[in-house]
Amino acid sequence: MQTTGVAVIGFGTVGTGVVGLLLEDGDRLAHAAGCRLVLRRVCDVDLDRPRDVSVPADLLTTRAEDCLNDPDVQVIVETVGGTTFAVDLMKQALAAGKHVVTANKAALAERGPELFRAAHAAGRSISFEASCAAGIPIIRAIRDGLIANRISGLTAILNGTCNYILTRMSSTGAAYGDALAEAQAKGYAEADPTLDVSGEDARHKLAILGALAFGTHVDLANVYVEGIRGISPQDITFGAQLGYVLKLLAIGRFQDGGLSLRVHPTFIPAENPLATVTGADNAVLLTGHAVGDTFYEGPGAGRMPTASSIVADLVDVALGRAQLTFQHIAWLAGRSPSVAMQPIAGVRSRTYLRFDVADETGVLAAVAGALGRHDISVASVLQREPTRPDSVPLVITTHEAREGNVADALAEIQNLPFMNCPAVRIRMLDRHHEDAP
Amino acid sequence: MQTTGVAVIGFGTVGTGVVGLLLEDGDRLAHAAGCRLVLRRVCDVDLDRPRDVSVPADLLTTRAEDCLNDPDVQVIVETVGGTTFAVDLMKQALAAGKHVVTANKAALAERGPELFRAAHAAGRSISFEASCAAGIPIIRAIRDGLIANRISGLTAILNGTCNYILTRMSSTGAAYGDALAEAQAKGYAEADPTLDVSGEDARHKLAILGALAFGTHVDLANVYVEGIRGISPQDITFGAQLGYVLKLLAIGRFQDGGLSLRVHPTFIPAENPLATVTGADNAVLLTGHAVGDTFYEGPGAGRMPTASSIVADLVDVALGRAQLTFQHIAWLAGRSPSVAMQPIAGVRSRTYLRFDVADETGVLAAVAGALGRHDISVASVLQREPTRPDSVPLVITTHEAREGNVADALAEIQNLPFMNCPAVRIRMLDRHHEDAP
Repeated sequence: MQTTGVAVIGFGTVGTGVVGLLLEDGDRLAHAAGCRLVLRRVCDVDLDRPRDVSVPADLLTTRAEDCLNDPDVQVIVETVGGTTFAVDLMKQALAAGKHVVTANKAALAERGPELFRAAHAAGRSISFEASCAAGIPIIRAIRDGLIANRISGLTAILNGTCNYILTRMSSTGAAYGDALAEAQAKGYAEADPTLDVSGEDARHKLAILGALAFGTHVDLANVYVEGIRGISPQDITFGAQLGYVLKLLAIGRFQDGGLSLRVHPTFIPAENPLATVTGADNAVLLTGHAVGDTFYEGPGAGRMPTASSIVADLVDVALGRAQLTFQHIAWLAGRSPSVAMQPIAGVRSRTYLRFDVADETGVLAAVAGALGRHDISVASVLQREPTRPDSVPLVITTHEAREGNVADALAEIQNLPFMNCPAVRIRMLDRHHEDAP
Repeated sequence: MQTTGVAVIGFGTVGTGVVGLLLEDGDRLAHAAGCRLVLRRVCDVDLDRPRDVSVPADLLTTRAEDCLNDPDVQVIVETVGGTTFAVDLMKQALAAGKHVVTANKAALAERGPELFRAAHAAGRSISFEASCAAGIPIIRAIRDGLIANRISGLTAILNGTCNYILTRMSSTGAAYGDALAEAQAKGYAEADPTLDVSGEDARHKLAILGALAFGTHVDLANVYVEGIRGISPQDITFGAQLGYVLKLLAIGRFQDGGLSLRVHPTFIPAENPLATVTGADNAVLLTGHAVGDTFYEGPGAGRMPTASSIVADLVDVALGRAQLTFQHIAWLAGRSPSVAMQPIAGVRSRTYLRFDVADETGVLAAVAGALGRHDISVASVLQREPTRPDSVPLVITTHEAREGNVADALAEIQNLPFMNCPAVRIRMLDRHHEDAP
């Protein structure tokens, strides 16, 4: 049986999972896959930290060169992370004739084409199933399983931390800060949660999945992002009363001749399959012209789900499939054209608006008038009898309208005398299926 | 760009979809996949039937030999169906040096190993993503994406016709016959629905997915099946009152050292993701030791979803990946061992029982006593005040119990004087997650 030598660089959470699978499941895996993955090296700057897996001492090294220069290593697993050292390391590995398997979404989203060029120059491949939605084999689904389709829509929950926080806020009424603290206590959020709660992590993943799904090069600067900081429990409550659930969604759509890619908090109808995705799960809903809608859900983070996808990629390399994929599939081969992007101001969507207003005559007329002047049609209004005359929440949902018009209308409304503070704006996914035009 | 010649044999519903994708999306597909699929031949015994796609006359033939003998054809798409002529045809194609792509679940479930041997003897491959769950790339997910996992559980809705009928019975209270007639009117069920409603179609698919997921050869005779004929709306109603939804499930589990594979109507908790799968959709829930639970949903039948998966397989063949997969992955390569099977009598599950009894003193005690003597513990009882003294429904759900014990208890209860007719027995999926031991 053919053997493939593997070096794991980065012996942290995910690296430990990969090492564990290779050491503990090697025989079963070799039988299932018809090829043997042999762990040759494990590299980390800190080898003293206690870990759950025991590695033969002669495999351990603190020097990446030991992996890169080992002729018995055919593939490097990069689990260091980040967009500087890790990218240099991957390039060195490729130049040294090694294939690369990585979960590094930031490096791929920011410097993917550069890495792909380095791989082609070296005649090697980069595989990254674990970079998006961890254990869900969503890269394979889009890249291989649905290749016959023109994908018109991708709607996804790609950050488990945010989904956990929003799920807790929905189910317990907790404030954002309390839900975040709970997520941190349970290990679902980092001590510094910025990358997750800013939406940046989901943005990286959308850039990768969007490039594959829509067959285009994606410049990260063209992916709009808003995070979940500042989400108020009262908006989640109002949304629920209207039949909507709040999620941080990553959305890709062809609309009005352009591709829009955006990450933002979104109210989705309770009957949408994404509304049922709770806790730290990830999920992806894809619409293809031949297949229709397909839906994928599973753990979006964590040691073993991520390791599961990395090992799947290692099998792909060992069998020689990863190389064929990397040479041929448009985005990986560097053949994707740039398509016209739809800037956020041009995106049409429904919108939830909450105004904190003084209880005065003419408020509703003034707000509705301003919306109307900007071509924004009101779909529903929710205003309770006031408990405090100086501060009344006025909730309005709109029919589909251009984002730019909504921004202009809000700027106008903001100057009205009864406005206590800036309006809250949350996009809505339509109750009806959003089709490409 | 390399070209791969394709012949489609069987120009029916699915064949028409494949031909349409190849003719209408050829350029886009060639760009996306880095290989060009060229339609060389379309074969059917009846070429006069009107079809939605227009094929150049010189590609059409009524003789399969024209496809098999064409040196410009590298791969045959078999969409004839059935287990006799289609199997002979696939063997001839393989012997003639062609790769085979098929959606023929019956042929694979009944004669898979024989076909695989023929393919290996000819040095060619068989691909069959479209055979299970049509457009959902579930074969790739199990075979490639989750290969690092020991799969302990597979729970799936694999027949869209049955799911449509049960969905309509649940939502409208319709009787089985009326829901079936509606499914037929809408094109979700054949004029002769036997293969679907008997559970046989789902059984074929479970045999295929089970072999891949559990890494074993599956003898179809070891896959237990019960269909949905005779399901009564009143059981669906009682189940709903207890928080359960009725689905025809295909279930694979390692339990007590054996693998059980079974298809039967099953009550599942309303919060299980499979409970939300309505209409003609298919869905698969997989539990792997590394990844945990992943869930897949999409259209389970139909021209274009099936064609979507067939074309994905054609790309795999054109790129050379299908051949590597077929040579190496255990089941396809003929390396799967037979594992110990758990016969249905040995399976442990919860059970819903409905007894139609006369309203007499001691009925509940007699039934509960008989259950207890067979080691079956009662979980809940639902008995309404009688409206007719001669016929009272007594609904009992049990804790987990051996199927064989349940059968023995029911045989004993059947002889009790107050029993009006045989008890209704429907398996339940536990509200708690069913883990492998």
